[in-house]
Amino acid sequence: MAKPNAFYAQSGGVTAVINASACGLIETARKHKDKINKVYAGRNGIIGALTEDLIDTSKESKSAIAALRHTPAGAFGSCRHKLKSIEESRAEYERLIEVFKAHNIRYFFYNGGGDSQDTSHKISQIAVALNYPITCVGIPKTVDNDLPITDNCPGFGSVAKYVAVSIREAAFDVASMAKTSTKVFVLEVMGRHAGWIAAAGGLACEKEGDAPHIILFPEIVFDETKFLKRVEACVKKYGYCAIVVAEGVRNAAGTFLAEAGVKDAFGHAQLGGVAPVIAKLCKSKLGYKYHWAVADYLQRSARHIASKIDVEQAYALGKAAVKLAIKGNNAVMPTIVRKSNTPYRWGIGVANLADVANVEKMMPRSYISRNGFGITETCRQYLQPLIVGEDYPPYKKGLPQYVELKNTPVKKKLKTKFELTGRT
Amino acid sequence: MAKPNAFYAQSGGVTAVINASACGLIETARKHKDKINKVYAGRNGIIGALTEDLIDTSKESKSAIAALRHTPAGAFGSCRHKLKSIEESRAEYERLIEVFKAHNIRYFFYNGGGDSQDTSHKISQIAVALNYPITCVGIPKTVDNDLPITDNCPGFGSVAKYVAVSIREAAFDVASMAKTSTKVFVLEVMGRHAGWIAAAGGLACEKEGDAPHIILFPEIVFDETKFLKRVEACVKKYGYCAIVVAEGVRNAAGTFLAEAGVKDAFGHAQLGGVAPVIAKLCKSKLGYKYHWAVADYLQRSARHIASKIDVEQAYALGKAAVKLAIKGNNAVMPTIVRKSNTPYRWGIGVANLADVANVEKMMPRSYISRNGFGITETCRQYLQPLIVGEDYPPYKKGLPQYVELKNTPVKKKLKTKFELTGRT
Repeated sequence: MAKPNAFYAQSGGVTAVINASACGLIETARKHKDKINKVYAGRNGIIGALTEDLIDTSKESKSAIAALRHTPAGAFGSCRHKLKSIEESRAEYERLIEVFKAHNIRYFFYNGGGDSQDTSHKISQIAVALNYPITCVGIPKTVDNDLPITDNCPGFGSVAKYVAVSIREAAFDVASMAKTSTKVFVLEVMGRHAGWIAAAGGLACEKEGDAPHIILFPEIVFDETKFLKRVEACVKKYGYCAIVVAEGVRNAAGTFLAEAGVKDAFGHAQLGGVAPVIAKLCKSKLGYKYHWAVADYLQRSARHIASKIDVEQAYALGKAAVKLAIKGNNAVMPTIVRKSNTPYRWGIGVANLADVANVEKMMPRSYISRNGFGITETCRQYLQPLIVGEDYPPYKKGLPQYVELKNTPVKKKLKTKFELTGRT
Repeated sequence: MAKPNAFYAQSGGVTAVINASACGLIETARKHKDKINKVYAGRNGIIGALTEDLIDTSKESKSAIAALRHTPAGAFGSCRHKLKSIEESRAEYERLIEVFKAHNIRYFFYNGGGDSQDTSHKISQIAVALNYPITCVGIPKTVDNDLPITDNCPGFGSVAKYVAVSIREAAFDVASMAKTSTKVFVLEVMGRHAGWIAAAGGLACEKEGDAPHIILFPEIVFDETKFLKRVEACVKKYGYCAIVVAEGVRNAAGTFLAEAGVKDAFGHAQLGGVAPVIAKLCKSKLGYKYHWAVADYLQRSARHIASKIDVEQAYALGKAAVKLAIKGNNAVMPTIVRKSNTPYRWGIGVANLADVANVEKMMPRSYISRNGFGITETCRQYLQPLIVGEDYPPYKKGLPQYVELKNTPVKKKLKTKFELTGRT
C-alpha cells in the first residue's frame, strides 16, 4: 500500500502564529517520510476537504515553509464551518471519507479553537462509526485563550503582548495631552465571553498609576455608576484615565453594550464598537474629552510584535501533533503544560478531544481584582510569561516580509461535486 | 552676566519620535555649556512658560535623557494652546517675558506642527516688538506631514510605517477568512485635511492584488456609487477588499462622513468613527460581512514599530535646532532636505518661521492615482524611504521600557500667578 498522506487545515479566526504551527507540522512531517507521504492542506479549512480542494504542500520550497513561522494569519485559508453530528449530517462525513480515500489520507490535523476541536472530535469518531481508519489530532489555536486543559493557547500570547504594548504606548500619549486635551482613552479588544485578552492589558500596569487604570471584563456586569466614579477618581489622581474594554462587556440585563446584531456561522453575535459607547459615556456624564481605538484584526494579526514564547509554543504544538499521530494516537490534542512560573518552564502534554470540544475556559474570578477593574497578582503570574520575548519578522524596504505560498492544488480525483449547505 | 538658559517645549498632538527630538536637543545643549547653561522644559508646552511651570532637565541622568530617544509621546507634557497676536493678547507675551527674564531664558525652542510653529513665530517677534532679546527656533513635528518647506515631518515616518504594516497584517487575516466570513476590512487612520497617512497605507501594496485595495483620501470627494462598485470588483477579483480611510473624508456637500461635533482648542472638528460608517455601507449595499479598526492614538504612539529613518531625523532636528540657536539664528526652523531618492539621502536645511506658520502642505493631486483610490509611483518614491529601518526599544518581561522622567520643577521666582484664558 502507498504511504498515507496527511490532511492539515486551519479553522476559525486566525492568529499571528497559527502558521508557526503549520510550519512545525509540515517541517516535522517532512522528516518522517517513512510514515507520512505528503501533507495536503485544506483550502479554507474543512471546506477544502469537503470540496476536494486540497493544496499540495510538498510543492512549497523549504524556505517558503520556514517563512510560515514568521507569517501571520492562515496561509491556506481558514473557515467558519461547523460540522453537525454524524447522525445529523451523514452526507458530509461520507463525503469526507470519499475524499480521504481518493487521496489516501490517513492522518487528519485540525488547527483551531473550541468549535474547531469539536469538528476534530467528530471526525475522530468516523474511524469507528463509519469504519474508516484515520488518526485525528487537533492543534490548539485561539487568541481567546479559552480552550480547556492546555495551560494556554497559541495565538493568545501574541495578542496579549500587542494589547499590553498598545495600551502602554497610547497611555504615554494621553498622559502627554491630558492637561489641555484628551483625558479618557478607551481601547477595545477582542473577547466575547472570556476576558483573557482584556486582562493582558493589565500587564502594562507595573506600578501605581500606570495604565490601564480600568479594565472592563465580559465576566463582570457593567455598573455605570461605579465605572464613572472610578474614571473620575483616576482623572483627578493621575490626570487621565486609560481603559481597556473587552468587546463582550454586558449590562445587568445581559445585553452587550455594543450589539451589532449580526451573527457569524457559529451563531455568535458579531460585536464591535463598545469603545465609542464607553468613551461617549465619559463625555456625556463627566465632560471629559475622549479618544478611542478599536484594535479588531490588528491585534490578532500583529506578527510584527508577536511574543517569542507564543511562536515557540505554536511551532512545538504543530511538531507534537505529527509525533502523536505517527505513534497512532487518535482523538487527541497536544497541550501546553506549565511546569513553573519563575523561571517560566513549559512542556507538551496531551488531552483527549472529547474533553476539549465545546468547553470554554473562563477566567477564574480570582484573576480579577475585587473591584472588578483590574487583574490580581495570580493573574499576572499566569499571563506574564506568555508575552516574553520578541520574534521580529524580516523586513525589506521598511515592511515585514510575509510569505504567500504557491498553494498548488492537488489534482481532483472525484467526479462528484459537493455542495456546501448554507451554514457557511 | 550668567550664561543664559534655554526653554524647550512640546506642542500639539504628540508622536512616536518627538522625544527623540528632545533627546537630540538636550544632549546637544549639554555639549555646549559655554553657550547654554540649562535646558528648562515647559510642563505642557507653552502653558509651562505662561504659568512658570518649568522643568529642570539638568536633574535628569544621562541615561534617562538617552532613553527619550526610544520613548513615545511627550515626556514633558504637550498642550493645545494657541497664542493670539501680540496686539490681541499683549498680557500673555508680557507674562512670557517676565518668566523668561526671571529664569534668564534667552533661547526658545518649540517642538510642534503648523499651529505650534505659529506660536514659535509670534514669540520670535517679541525680540523686536517687545524689546526682549531671545533666539527662537522651531522644531518640526507632526504625524500629519503637513508642514511646508521641510521635505517631511518627524513623526510621520513612524505613523506611516505603522499604517503600512498594520494594513498588510490585517489583510493577511482577512484574506484567510474571506471564503466564509469577513470580506471587507476598513482601517481608519488620522488625517483631517491631508491624506499623507492614508497614502502611506499604499506602501503595503507592492504588486497587483496586494492590500490596501482602496484608499479614501480627504482630498477626494467620497463618491458612494464609484466606491461600492470598486469594493464589489475587489471582492470578486481578490476574494476580499481591504480599505484604508482617512478620518477626514467628506462627501460632495463638504461634510465629514463621521462628524463627532466636538471641536478642539484650535477650532478643528474632533473626528473619529468613519470606519464603521464605511463598513456598514458595504454591508447594507453589498451584503458583505465586515470588520473595522480605528487606530487612533495607537498609530502615533507605536514606538515599538517606529521607522529608523524617522527616529534619526527627529534626533537630528533637535540637535540642529541647538546649533542654529547658538549661532544666533532667530525665527527659523531646521528642515529635512531630500538629496536623492535612490539611494535615499537627506540633510538638514533651514526655513523661516514666517514661511512655515499656518501653512498646510496638502498632498499633490499627482500623488493620488487617477481613479482616486490609490497612490501613484511618484507618491511611492516620496513615501517609501521614510519608513525604512526598524529601531526597536529595549524590552523587559515582554514590554517596551519607556522612560518616565523625574520632571523636577524649577523653583518659581515670580510672586504673580497667571490665569490661562478659557481657550485651552
